[in-house]
Order: sequence, then structure tokens, then C-alpha cells
Amino acid sequence: VKKVYLGIDMGGTRIKMALLNKNAEILRTKDIDAQAGLSMEQRLEDLVDDINGLVGSDCKLKGIGIAFPGIIDFESKKILSKYVKYPNAHKTDIPGWAEKHWRIPLLIENDARAALLGEWQHGSGKGCNNILMVTLGTGMGSAVLLNGQLLRGRNYLAGNLGGHMSIDFQGEICNCGNRGCVETLASTWALEENLKKIPNYKSSILYKEETLSFKSVFTCASNGDNIAEKLKLQSLEAWSSGIINLLHAYDPEKLILGGGILESKEEIIPFIRKRVWEYSWLPDSGTEIVAAEQTKYAGLQGMCYLLNIEIFNN
Amino acid sequence: VKKVYLGIDMGGTRIKMALLNKNAEILRTKDIDAQAGLSMEQRLEDLVDDINGLVGSDCKLKGIGIAFPGIIDFESKKILSKYVKYPNAHKTDIPGWAEKHWRIPLLIENDARAALLGEWQHGSGKGCNNILMVTLGTGMGSAVLLNGQLLRGRNYLAGNLGGHMSIDFQGEICNCGNRGCVETLASTWALEENLKKIPNYKSSILYKEETLSFKSVFTCASNGDNIAEKLKLQSLEAWSSGIINLLHAYDPEKLILGGGILESKEEIIPFIRKRVWEYSWLPDSGTEIVAAEQTKYAGLQGMCYLLNIEIFNN
Repeated sequence: VKKVYLGIDMGGTRIKMALLNKNAEILRTKDIDAQAGLSMEQRLEDLVDDINGLVGSDCKLKGIGIAFPGIIDFESKKILSKYVKYPNAHKTDIPGWAEKHWRIPLLIENDARAALLGEWQHGSGKGCNNILMVTLGTGMGSAVLLNGQLLRGRNYLAGNLGGHMSIDFQGEICNCGNRGCVETLASTWALEENLKKIPNYKSSILYKEETLSFKSVFTCASNGDNIAEKLKLQSLEAWSSGIINLLHAYDPEKLILGGGILESKEEIIPFIRKRVWEYSWLPDSGTEIVAAEQTKYAGLQGMCYLLNIEIFNN
Repeated sequence: VKKVYLGIDMGGTRIKMALLNKNAEILRTKDIDAQAGLSMEQRLEDLVDDINGLVGSDCKLKGIGIAFPGIIDFESKKILSKYVKYPNAHKTDIPGWAEKHWRIPLLIENDARAALLGEWQHGSGKGCNNILMVTLGTGMGSAVLLNGQLLRGRNYLAGNLGGHMSIDFQGEICNCGNRGCVETLASTWALEENLKKIPNYKSSILYKEETLSFKSVFTCASNGDNIAEKLKLQSLEAWSSGIINLLHAYDPEKLILGGGILESKEEIIPFIRKRVWEYSWLPDSGTEIVAAEQTKYAGLQGMCYLLNIEIFNN
């Protein structure tokens, strides 16, 4: 019987699960839809059968690590932010769920922090102990490693709010209550609203699409769609500006860019490098800017690392 | 003969010097004007007589600590930023100057970092090891203490660029090359320019003043001058927005606000507290927000602390 960890990455649209050994090698995986409106408690109960099926009879589950898109109290294993996809998540006893079903320990951490740890241990952050990670997906996530330690802060939000950095202090109110957040200006969730702010947007092919994505924004832009080009440029400018602020804040050795939007990394990374070169105080080659390598399971591998060092002393 | 340190705080308008014992008690002080246009080398040579006079025959100089408004390579004791008041500062051999005249060691550090250390050891930061310091003066300085250690970063700029955080990503180019920096929107050096952007500014009493200061902005505003009121509000909003971004970035236990503009702390601190409460992700009482105590010599006391721990093992 193999001793395994279970990693769960609760994304905005998909829930990714995997069994990993203590070396963070992925043994089996299962992806399911993240149904909207389900409470956190219900969501977790619904996963039990999937998890038992994944573990099967040849593995023994030793611990669970959840990567979650929100502000997480790592010590008491609570979800602190209220604006998350799963209602009542902040009131749910998450370690109690693991205890009840399998009598095993559980850890939960912010998903950008988990992805950072995964990239650090197994991806493009190997050998580098001072890293800023930024993920561009449904929103914009971020996390910081300083001297090989996660920066968490007094209220567990240090480093995680890159997407809610205000870069337009007299701009629109974001869904978080702050003004002019990077996410409000450039993210998948705000894409439709931002499209509709561009004059003549109805002339764009994007207007006909059922679900807008940055992939189609980049494609339409390169096909000569002017509206898409404007949307692309505004998004790249907003990300760059937020990222320069973050680079100034932490002055890391390396910036790792991850998340689904990095499918278009050939356009994104050179743009950000150029902006950093033009606008930031960083000296030439002051910071390495690279794409994430372990895009799909970095968060799960990061949770595996945390289980190893926090609980099992592996 | 008393063994003493010399602290030098090279401000934008004044150079403050003091002799301190190893407990950072101030024995004697001397303030002089920071003449514009003098090269750093010339400036330092001109200080030699003042310094020897200050030391006199009853003290023995053991080390010098300089707090400087710029990006500083603390290890190799070099000024890295080029946009400073003293031409050629980045080419000057500063420890060589101390060696030549007194054969003693010298340290140099960013002035906001030095002030933070002074406040931590002897002011409103006592007993707290996670501090964000923001100084509002000619510009806006900032520095960060994490777990009792200064955050310096790979290129020595971590934490120091709060004033050059972009909060208006499509705004005006700052003198630093970045866009929409907090300082461009609200600082003493940008005050006149910002006044002139307000419609009807010539009707304000401020327009008649020879040298604009925030002191007069606050005074005129409370006397019912509408233009001054607008300038005050825009400045408070810009500082608050930048500070919220910094609080999110580091999530410290305490924010200490210092610098000359904090003369008006009765107006500034409540405004910032309210904005943090309204706009930030911090929980209620998530961060203490206080005014600096050691406003005048905090930087010198901070350099004394660095001389103690880095060189003399006191």
C-alpha cells in the first residue's frame, strides 16, 4: 500500500485533485467542475466519493492539502475572505471534514502561495529563494517568497493582494470595495465590462463571442480587430503597472508569471519585460522574469511541500 | 574621553548631524543647510571642519552613519540612484572619506530605513518587529521591517519606493520615469504643479505664497479656501491609496507615519485610518496606525543601531 497525499486546487471554474507521493510526484488526477452556488460544506461532502475512488485500495491517504483562492489563516486553517465562490466558506470547519472522513491532517493555503511553492520546488523557481509569483487567470493572484519563507503577514494577506492593488486611485470601485484595482482593469471576470467601455465595441468580433477570454482577445487583436487591440493593450498596461509596483515592493530575484492567460506568454512576457525596463527603478537584469513551468499542478505540489515540512517532517 | 558615533541625515533641505553614544543618546547636534548643486564629494569635504568642531577634544569618534535619501547598496556602501540632490553621489567613495579623515568605519543606508530603525528602537515602534514606515516630506519615503530585519531586496530597493508606487497607471510621467507615482500626485516638491492643475487656482491664498508647504495648505483649507481644500483632499486620497497598497503588500503589525508633513497629524492620521477601514482588506484593528515619535533624530538613532549591530557587536 502506497502512502499518499491528496492535493485539491479549488479554482474558480475547475476543481483539480491529485494523489502525490511525498516527493510531489503525481500518481493520479481527477478534475471536476466547480459548480456555482454550492456551499463550501456541501462542496466538500460531494468530493468524498471522488476522493475515495481516487485513493482506491492500493493507496493509504496520509494528509490533504487544499489550495484555495482567498485569504487563508494558515495556522487555524480558516478561510478569512468572504468574497469567494463558495458561500459560507469562512464558517466551514475544513480540517474537521478531513478528520471525520479519514482521520488525517489537512492544510489549507492561498492558491497563489501554493503555486509559488510548487514552482519553487519543481518548476521555474528552482534554486531561487526570493520569488514573486503572479498568476493571471479569472483574477490576478500573487504571492511572495523571501529567504525561502512564504511572506504571510499579520492578517495572512501579505503578498496575496496584487490583483487588488489600486493603480487608478480615483477609478471605479472594485467588487472588493477598493478603487481602481488591477483586476477591475484587467482580468477575465472583468473582461466583458471592460470591452463595453471601448467606443464602438459592437464592431468587434469579440462582441459576438459567448464567453469572452483573453485567448480570443489576443487572437482577434493579431487578426487586426482594433477593439481587441485596445483591450489587449489596456490589459497589458494594467498588469505591467501592478507588477512594477510589486517588483518595487519586494525587489525579488525572480518574477514567475503563471495562470491560464499565460497561454499567450509570447505576447505577455516580452511586453512586461519592456515596461519594467522602461518604467521601473530596477537596474538592467535586476530581476529575472519568467513563465511558470508547472502550470497545471503547481498548487498541488506546493501543498505537498507544506504537508512535508509542517506535519510530516519529510 | 567619550567614545561616540557621528550620525548624518542628509535631507533634501537640511543636513542634520549629531554625536551619539552607543545607546543612541544624543550628546550634541548641528544642523546646516543642504546647499543645492554642490557635488557629494565637495559636500562631504565641507563637512569635515563642522564634524571636527562637533567632536572637540573630549570625544573620540568611533564610526559614522549616514542616512541618505536614495537607493543605497548597504554592503558596498554606494549610492545607487542617480536622481538625488548631490551630483555624482553614486560615484563618490564615501567610506574612503571617513577612512581618510578619521580612519574609522562608515555605514550608509536609505533615510527611511534609518528612520524606521530609530523609531523601532527608540520611538513608536518599540517592541514590534513588523513595521511599515512611511515618511511624508519633500517626497514620500518608505521602509519595511519584517521579523526584526530590514527588507532590502536584491537591488536594495525593496520597501523604499512607496512614493514611486503608481496609483494612476495612465497618469503623468514622474521625474523618475514611472507613471502616476504617489509623489507626483502628492508631495511638497510637486505641490505647486498640483495647485496649478486646480481650476481657478489663482483665487486661492496659496497662489500668493512664496514657498508652498502642506502646512499652509492645511491652514488655508481650514480657513475655508476651496482650492486649498481640494489640494488637501487630493493629497490625502493619494497618500491613503498608496499606503493601502503598501499595507496590502506587507501586512505589517504597525504603520508608522513620519516626516515634516506630519505636523498636521491630527488631520492626516484620522483620514488615513478611515480610508484603510473603508477601502482595504484589513480586518478591523488589523494594523495599528500611529505617528512617529522621534521625528527629528530617528534616522541618526537608526544609523547608531546599525553601527552597533553591523560593526561593533554592541
